[in-house]
Amino acid sequence: MLLGPQHVITDPDCLKRAAGATFPTANSLVAILKPASREQVQECVRVANRYGTPLYPISSGKNWGYGSRAPSADGCVLVDLGRMRTIVDFSEELAYITVEPGVTQNQVIEFLRARNSRLWIDATGSSPDCSLIGNACERGFGHTPYADHFAHTCALEVVLPTGELAHTGFGRFDNAFAAPIYRWGFGPSIDGLFSQSNLGIVTRMTFWLMPAPECFQAFFFRCGDERQLHDVIDALRRLRLGGTLRSAMHIGNDYKVLSGIQQYPWSESHGRTPLPADVMEGLRRRYNFGRWNGSGALYGTRRQVAEARRIVKAALNGKVDQLQFLDDRRIALASRFAGLYRMVTGWDLTRALELVKPVMGLMRGIPTQQPLRSVYWRRREPVPEHMDPDRDHCGLLWCGPVAPATGEHAIALARIAESTLLSYGFEPMISFTMLSERALGCVTTITYDRAVAGEDDRAMECYRALSEGFERAGYFPYRLGIQGMDRMNGNNGYNAVVRTIKNALDPNRILAPGRYDPQ
Amino acid sequence: MLLGPQHVITDPDCLKRAAGATFPTANSLVAILKPASREQVQECVRVANRYGTPLYPISSGKNWGYGSRAPSADGCVLVDLGRMRTIVDFSEELAYITVEPGVTQNQVIEFLRARNSRLWIDATGSSPDCSLIGNACERGFGHTPYADHFAHTCALEVVLPTGELAHTGFGRFDNAFAAPIYRWGFGPSIDGLFSQSNLGIVTRMTFWLMPAPECFQAFFFRCGDERQLHDVIDALRRLRLGGTLRSAMHIGNDYKVLSGIQQYPWSESHGRTPLPADVMEGLRRRYNFGRWNGSGALYGTRRQVAEARRIVKAALNGKVDQLQFLDDRRIALASRFAGLYRMVTGWDLTRALELVKPVMGLMRGIPTQQPLRSVYWRRREPVPEHMDPDRDHCGLLWCGPVAPATGEHAIALARIAESTLLSYGFEPMISFTMLSERALGCVTTITYDRAVAGEDDRAMECYRALSEGFERAGYFPYRLGIQGMDRMNGNNGYNAVVRTIKNALDPNRILAPGRYDPQ
Repeated sequence: MLLGPQHVITDPDCLKRAAGATFPTANSLVAILKPASREQVQECVRVANRYGTPLYPISSGKNWGYGSRAPSADGCVLVDLGRMRTIVDFSEELAYITVEPGVTQNQVIEFLRARNSRLWIDATGSSPDCSLIGNACERGFGHTPYADHFAHTCALEVVLPTGELAHTGFGRFDNAFAAPIYRWGFGPSIDGLFSQSNLGIVTRMTFWLMPAPECFQAFFFRCGDERQLHDVIDALRRLRLGGTLRSAMHIGNDYKVLSGIQQYPWSESHGRTPLPADVMEGLRRRYNFGRWNGSGALYGTRRQVAEARRIVKAALNGKVDQLQFLDDRRIALASRFAGLYRMVTGWDLTRALELVKPVMGLMRGIPTQQPLRSVYWRRREPVPEHMDPDRDHCGLLWCGPVAPATGEHAIALARIAESTLLSYGFEPMISFTMLSERALGCVTTITYDRAVAGEDDRAMECYRALSEGFERAGYFPYRLGIQGMDRMNGNNGYNAVVRTIKNALDPNRILAPGRYDPQ
Repeated sequence: MLLGPQHVITDPDCLKRAAGATFPTANSLVAILKPASREQVQECVRVANRYGTPLYPISSGKNWGYGSRAPSADGCVLVDLGRMRTIVDFSEELAYITVEPGVTQNQVIEFLRARNSRLWIDATGSSPDCSLIGNACERGFGHTPYADHFAHTCALEVVLPTGELAHTGFGRFDNAFAAPIYRWGFGPSIDGLFSQSNLGIVTRMTFWLMPAPECFQAFFFRCGDERQLHDVIDALRRLRLGGTLRSAMHIGNDYKVLSGIQQYPWSESHGRTPLPADVMEGLRRRYNFGRWNGSGALYGTRRQVAEARRIVKAALNGKVDQLQFLDDRRIALASRFAGLYRMVTGWDLTRALELVKPVMGLMRGIPTQQPLRSVYWRRREPVPEHMDPDRDHCGLLWCGPVAPATGEHAIALARIAESTLLSYGFEPMISFTMLSERALGCVTTITYDRAVAGEDDRAMECYRALSEGFERAGYFPYRLGIQGMDRMNGNNGYNAVVRTIKNALDPNRILAPGRYDPQ
């Protein structure tokens, strides 16, 4: 037998659980295979070709809001790569790490700590147990200057849909020193084909790591209204284009922030949904956050950070309220003198620090469970210690359109998200991220309680209306979940190329049919 | 007729000239077509498919050292895209420009000047008349923070080998605002397929432009020996990884620098080649340059640049000689007080400034003819006003391996280049470029006089020995010329993928057979 019996799962309950997600799913699984090596992955693929059984590979399977582990087509065998947890290569000097798909954010953090490394990863705001490869291949993002995950990788090792192995860039040469540090190699660059695709199973990948700067300082601010949001996005774009800001800035609205602090205030709202405006206003005052809440960070030498602070202050002056700079020293100080600090600044630091610490961690590449709590927003049970949104009936759908980073576009995006979600009775949780010098991502969250009858349908309708609303207005998502793979469909030259390549590389259509698969 | 008769060239002399390069070429051309639009390009491709005639597309055709306009296979029709000179789109606010393949560096510079734009391009060190698209698709590099050209592009419009049109990223949606500013779109990223490939003809492409910083300062230094070179490369890597240096640093050896200043000193060498060591020593003293000569630049606000200067000074202290910082103010000052300056610093600034100005221009994205002069190094006629290396019998072959940016690798590269070129009787002109935070490029130049009998053969043998020497040692090139396309051959998974895609997208093998085309 190819894998030991304990690594081939056919128990119907297990299969059913694995085929579920944070929204309704329809496709069932035939089995779950847990290969331990690329050779076993290759063997799985060869067998699948022989029998014509489609495979659906996952890394850690924590793709919550986009489909979790659930397959994009019926009758698939799930290939769970979670056992492939080897850290294959590491260089402190050249600042990279090469990992397998089962390697998680926490595992790398521990690996680096054990070596007293000065290197950071760029973490996603999801779970510390997320796979690095899984997230990068979905082109996820984080909060340090290495925020664009896929752009900071190279040397992919890929099991092709026929079972052959391919290495990208210089990785195809056994003796190429530059394989882990130079993306392109020579000849056509094929790395991109294996992101957001069903064209291969990535079994190894090199991630570039960021050396910890001498000095790190976070900053926080608020915008009270659309005018301020408009102006601050324009200011942040200029700061990023000019190189003063190097990381993905983040601006969350009040709903987004509140859902990270507590669950839905059922009693204050007298059971009504969506959240009444006056209740929200009370909560904004209680927790002391604004309509829009921004965070970012400065990295460099002490003087570089000081100069960046000066520039940021000048650029945001008049466009934001309560601009605050925070670092470890100030936090330690503030913790000791929280009462005094409050008196002087009007800010309840003790409480704020609890909320701010995980955010500051993320800006240093330290993963946190904290944002995941928001998935339990509408649930009436308390958030369990070991969170599992799939198991716990958490309803979650994400839609993340991209726009040019201008105030005008930010407001257009926010208005579409707000009006659509409210019209379906959901709180419009919105977070803007400066994905690059020019691009603004707008992750809109639909979160609900799957245990409430009718909510699944309403949420899916809302998702569809939201996606279509964004697209009609000219905003397309940076990523798709299995709930939205039909957005790939259509007749255009790009789809013709992708279809041609799919047919050529995967003649038996073995690999993840329906996943980023234009019809 | 598809194109007017004046845009279909069959004159044997013209065809022969176009099939030549800066080294011996064997493949002949059947005709030259000059389409004026993507529709005409599509029509050319359709007709070619009908008759089974291979096409060889060029942009400006100035790919000197890598094959100029000469095709990679016999019997091709050259498709010269030089007439497609439209600047299609431009945004000062979002800092991008969308161009056709005939648009040159100079054309964009003039376009920006006419609009009083504050945006810079990143220029190659080749000719101001080079095509932006041509260079980016070959993954060329420049000298500002946007040095990696292909990494600063998106939204490719491509005529596929079957004549269909495809748009990459969000470009496939007519109304997508993010098309010119976000690389990825959603779904598999196919942009990389059209770089260093024969998989499509890029007819339009968006380039991101860098906003001019408040302050710009260049710096120059020298390394006298291997020890210093070793240490400075390690120091520069750390400065780049830490974000203090953001651009592609450049370190040229004495041969490289000399060839930019003057032609071969035939009389001082009494006609002997390669250049005798004592003559070189004298020239180093006369022109006051070192064994290794570095240049780089700082970008930012005045204070950011001041802090970067402090960090660079500290990091390079003891590792380099004669570290000098230069900006426009200092140059103006120095020009007025050149004599005094020389007295104080020992540096002949008047002369140095003449050499330094084009280098400083490049670091601000201003293209220059100056480095091209070095191609005339071994020619006995003076450099003509209008340089044309193909016409003027200039022998030029480039080989640019990539290595991790460490001192150890830099020395290994330099030793291979030096010993190989000297053993074939050529001067080993070497320039190192910090292609990224982790990657060091080593462009090695074989330049010779094609009019001298036997030199063509010797140069080609030298090129082959050099490529093989680098590869045996673990260093592979960032780019291939038609003289080295056989380096693509071999049985590996990457080549299997590229072959499969080629066969699927170009079933009639119409497009540039032999170009980045693994056998």
